[in-house]
Amino acid sequence: MKAVVVHAPRDLRIDEVECPAVGPGEVMVRIRAGGICGSDLHYYLHGGFGTVRVQEPMILGHEMAGEVREIGAGVTNLRVGERVVVNPSRACGQCHFCQEGKANHCLDMRFYGSAMRMPHVQGGFREFLVCPAVQAVPVPADLPLEQAVFAEPLSVCLHAARQAGALHGRRVLITGSGPIGALCVLVARHAGAREIVVTDLADAPLAAAKRVGADLALNVATDPEALVPFAADKGCFDVAFEASGAGSALAGALQAVRPGGTIVQVGIASGEATIPLNVLVAKEITLRGTFRFHEEFAWAVFLLATRAVDVMALLTEVVPLADAVRAFDLAADRSRSMKVQLAL
Amino acid sequence: MKAVVVHAPRDLRIDEVECPAVGPGEVMVRIRAGGICGSDLHYYLHGGFGTVRVQEPMILGHEMAGEVREIGAGVTNLRVGERVVVNPSRACGQCHFCQEGKANHCLDMRFYGSAMRMPHVQGGFREFLVCPAVQAVPVPADLPLEQAVFAEPLSVCLHAARQAGALHGRRVLITGSGPIGALCVLVARHAGAREIVVTDLADAPLAAAKRVGADLALNVATDPEALVPFAADKGCFDVAFEASGAGSALAGALQAVRPGGTIVQVGIASGEATIPLNVLVAKEITLRGTFRFHEEFAWAVFLLATRAVDVMALLTEVVPLADAVRAFDLAADRSRSMKVQLAL
Amino acid sequence: MKAVVVHAPRDLRIDEVECPAVGPGEVMVRIRAGGICGSDLHYYLHGGFGTVRVQEPMILGHEMAGEVREIGAGVTNLRVGERVVVNPSRACGQCHFCQEGKANHCLDMRFYGSAMRMPHVQGGFREFLVCPAVQAVPVPADLPLEQAVFAEPLSVCLHAARQAGALHGRRVLITGSGPIGALCVLVARHAGAREIVVTDLADAPLAAAKRVGADLALNVATDPEALVPFAADKGCFDVAFEASGAGSALAGALQAVRPGGTIVQVGIASGEATIPLNVLVAKEITLRGTFRFHEEFAWAVFLLATRAVDVMALLTEVVPLADAVRAFDLAADRSRSMKVQLAL
Amino acid sequence: MKAVVVHAPRDLRIDEVECPAVGPGEVMVRIRAGGICGSDLHYYLHGGFGTVRVQEPMILGHEMAGEVREIGAGVTNLRVGERVVVNPSRACGQCHFCQEGKANHCLDMRFYGSAMRMPHVQGGFREFLVCPAVQAVPVPADLPLEQAVFAEPLSVCLHAARQAGALHGRRVLITGSGPIGALCVLVARHAGAREIVVTDLADAPLAAAKRVGADLALNVATDPEALVPFAADKGCFDVAFEASGAGSALAGALQAVRPGGTIVQVGIASGEATIPLNVLVAKEITLRGTFRFHEEFAWAVFLLATRAVDVMALLTEVVPLADAVRAFDLAADRSRSMKVQLAL
Repeated sequence: MKAVVVHAPRDLRIDEVECPAVGPGEVMVRIRAGGICGSDLHYYLHGGFGTVRVQEPMILGHEMAGEVREIGAGVTNLRVGERVVVNPSRACGQCHFCQEGKANHCLDMRFYGSAMRMPHVQGGFREFLVCPAVQAVPVPADLPLEQAVFAEPLSVCLHAARQAGALHGRRVLITGSGPIGALCVLVARHAGAREIVVTDLADAPLAAAKRVGADLALNVATDPEALVPFAADKGCFDVAFEASGAGSALAGALQAVRPGGTIVQVGIASGEATIPLNVLVAKEITLRGTFRFHEEFAWAVFLLATRAVDVMALLTEVVPLADAVRAFDLAADRSRSMKVQLAL
Repeated sequence: MKAVVVHAPRDLRIDEVECPAVGPGEVMVRIRAGGICGSDLHYYLHGGFGTVRVQEPMILGHEMAGEVREIGAGVTNLRVGERVVVNPSRACGQCHFCQEGKANHCLDMRFYGSAMRMPHVQGGFREFLVCPAVQAVPVPADLPLEQAVFAEPLSVCLHAARQAGALHGRRVLITGSGPIGALCVLVARHAGAREIVVTDLADAPLAAAKRVGADLALNVATDPEALVPFAADKGCFDVAFEASGAGSALAGALQAVRPGGTIVQVGIASGEATIPLNVLVAKEITLRGTFRFHEEFAWAVFLLATRAVDVMALLTEVVPLADAVRAFDLAADRSRSMKVQLAL
Repeated sequence: MKAVVVHAPRDLRIDEVECPAVGPGEVMVRIRAGGICGSDLHYYLHGGFGTVRVQEPMILGHEMAGEVREIGAGVTNLRVGERVVVNPSRACGQCHFCQEGKANHCLDMRFYGSAMRMPHVQGGFREFLVCPAVQAVPVPADLPLEQAVFAEPLSVCLHAARQAGALHGRRVLITGSGPIGALCVLVARHAGAREIVVTDLADAPLAAAKRVGADLALNVATDPEALVPFAADKGCFDVAFEASGAGSALAGALQAVRPGGTIVQVGIASGEATIPLNVLVAKEITLRGTFRFHEEFAWAVFLLATRAVDVMALLTEVVPLADAVRAFDLAADRSRSMKVQLAL
Repeated sequence: MKAVVVHAPRDLRIDEVECPAVGPGEVMVRIRAGGICGSDLHYYLHGGFGTVRVQEPMILGHEMAGEVREIGAGVTNLRVGERVVVNPSRACGQCHFCQEGKANHCLDMRFYGSAMRMPHVQGGFREFLVCPAVQAVPVPADLPLEQAVFAEPLSVCLHAARQAGALHGRRVLITGSGPIGALCVLVARHAGAREIVVTDLADAPLAAAKRVGADLALNVATDPEALVPFAADKGCFDVAFEASGAGSALAGALQAVRPGGTIVQVGIASGEATIPLNVLVAKEITLRGTFRFHEEFAWAVFLLATRAVDVMALLTEVVPLADAVRAFDLAADRSRSMKVQLAL
């Protein structure tokens, strides 16, 4: 079968790989749709991020949906032909973090398409994926797979929202309007935020943010002072989601968030950032990281299945597998794309 | 009367200033003891910190205790001769932060010995201070004033502890063992912390930290790897207090704190810090600022008055007013001093 | 001018009362719409509730909207003719609860149409009301006053929602589907609740609950076992709002809420209730009261003004002032009414 | 071997039972000390509590310590002769509550000496107990077993304290001063509570409460109005622990706790209680249950082993196994005893 394999920075190939057998408790999924995510792009463009580097050829992809093709012994909750979206996260269930309910911090995590451990966990941009049945979450037959495959990034943003405490009635700032920032807009709206202001350096992603519910979209490249009015009287936002990973965006958020407010750091970027720690101290701001998700995956599927949220405004293009390199280049160009998907 | 006035960096003088009259609702306090704090040292050594600069001669001091000398009209809760410690913080009570219970973020705060507003709020290192009666908090006649005057920095640390959530049973790291770091040790012990580990770059402050209750004191200058074992399995501390203001200390804390843990940033240092934001994200750490105090002042006085905590191990020397410059130089030398006080 | 005055249980009269003058900082509002609330009904039917009893004739009403007729000296934020909804809550701003941000617990609260203090605070079911300008909150000219007047009960439910923590993605039970219970449905939906189940003893209020967003409406009079499936495996609801004030409803909620879940007690009923404390203990359930509102009033006005919520499905009838007794009798009949309003 | 077996209410026998074999991963402990707890007394006096009834002969006891006599295959963390205290709680580790970090709500819990499931889980008042090695927690050789055996009730109170949020600096009320109430005093003191007031109906337990740190002990039988001054201005306690299980005590706590305060319900008593729900509502009080413990057991052992707390003031008598019935009768007499232990 075919798979999308990164070999080195800028060296992405469609390789022929072997199709694994289905064991007990497992299912084989015919992957149909794959969403390209920021970390896929980091592997493709830079060979990794921070200390995480691609050290052997790795199939990319952790956003994927398809239909069940084969069922292993003992699997009772799925049937052949059923549509599923795959939860890429497999925690061990035994370590002390798993037992505390913090499975996203599992000491033995296997996450599809991640170079965090060696050998790498191969990803899901492939024609057939064999996974534990519990990771294949059924979706209604009438839910298009290009919507279902948003379950993963939506989970990330639902988890980020939980890190912020209640958003209901809050004034929310979102810095960085890529796919994750824009999904944070959509999630904050769904959670009843009172006001949502988004910033970015480019107009195209800001327009997308407005399409999914932002009240105000500010280009801080063309108007670097755009957030200044919001910083009056020590700041007015209750919550910020910093989705750009840029130190300058975080600095801006620290100015515009009110004393006692919370900034959820979603973007990871290159690693280090220089921040005005004195502002964080003087305003007693909470800066909290958010990392992946756990029980939010089922919730994301539920929201998509019931059409409680509409993600389609964020889908730029579905690109055939054969044009995978073009798909990645398109995904890497923020001026032209939000979410790019592969048809596998 | 005499007062300790900073005119410019390294230009500290004992000036003769006028003694104000006592108005209604006010008291005059004969100041006897004044504790030198880190911000006093910043004014003395550098003329300020961050954007806060001394722009006119300013009497220093916001840690002071003495006895009531005169009572204004309408004051009923104090009597002449009573010992008091002065709360240096005067919030307006009217702005929206005051009405929300966040008086330490008051939009019209007057804090003794602070150059944050212009004209500056003159401080308390003077022979006589006239203040609203509500800011003069009585202490028992048998409480030595050199203990009472610890109420202010102790309040800072009690407030910092509140920013961390419950410390009871927690494993606590404290980076930086100056007077504030050491008082954080004492407070964490009082709050029932399970284990307290302290780091610093010098042995003298580490020894002081052990005297007030640290279980383990690590010199990270002589052993830069001292915290590494605590960072195993993603880190073990539930809570850290970063009391040094150094980016490198914060980076160390981010490594040693467990996923979901909290770092309270107490130190302000020069302003900016470069931090490994990816660690904060991947471990979902909460980094929260703490700024001064509010209702904790009365609690600090209570703890000192009832001898629930013992701060005397942190007092280096009481220096006569005439030797104020020597006192400041001593306070600035971490190898020789923890808390230095003036006898006024 | 005319006013709706309760003299004794079942003795409600339209009395002629004097129109007060407008002082500095005050406005006179020509009241046009008044919503009848549960506590109005308690005064009308029983002369009070618990220890709160009508001891002198009292104008009822604390849900009212109208237009500004006259403006006192110094009022700059309102103009004659502007539509306003009146916030019935006037906290002192000075007591320690006000200064802590808990103004709804003010020790010197004046709340329109309440017999909690003596002399009673006269209410707002009258043609002209003079109130501090800050209590008259402007609404857009195109917002019908019968919608604006929902701001008060909506505030109660927004405040109740805050007592529950984040509702986003939560499974929510609401017991009792009167006007408050039904508004809790609407608020929970707006806050992104995942599932909302409502119970009541009558079909009419259950139908109203479905109109404002309930997923499931259960009549526990006709099917007393209706909640049993939800109590399996120690219960499944994360949050419950108990809006009936009935001990049996609270007992049902205790069974159906999951371990560690929260029940917000909104209904006050007669005072005492007998509850299975052992279930609360064994499941570590949080039972928390909610009382009135504070900053939620402005938020409620914002939600109504922006049509973020639609309350009209809950309005039963607008009754002319002359028929006030009929209006109260209608409001007291749960089989025929949800919210009844007076046209004043 | 001998064991203390309840057959029916008031029918407690010392029976000869078979000694089980040690399997892989298990250890055999020679039990030396057993503490009699309130639930043991309920089984002895009433045959159970609430819906939990003794339906077959059951060995009582879930507070026990001894030394390791034999070690099963694969056990590496214990050695023969080592002193241990036994954690009576065995959660399944697999159900969704266990995986959420709420093991005390495990759907398949096995807790020594509990009739909650059928067949009952036999208890630990016996000469030899075979248990999974992970449940036998080592204690230092110099820690007397009569102190070690307090680990279980101390865990209960440490867990209760966690349900209350931070106790540091809080004013705390404890209603009911039996062994659990008195241990709550000790725990609140250890957690840095500012003031601790205890109530009971008898003088002897109040005296014990003072020995372990209560500031004030009030007999509400002889002075039913004793709490009234604390209820002024809507109440002054931040936190209460209701450890009597009596509705009247809970009603008193509701009066004396301040708006927004928390009452942790520790006592279970007979099941139902009649409470003034209107007070809970009007003061927005949080009433939260607490049930057993989980990770607190290791912490309790640590506190006892390091002598951070001193429980000996609560030990009434150590009674030989042969006099078990007398031990139970003594434990049931609040005027003569706090904690009674069996020497096995």
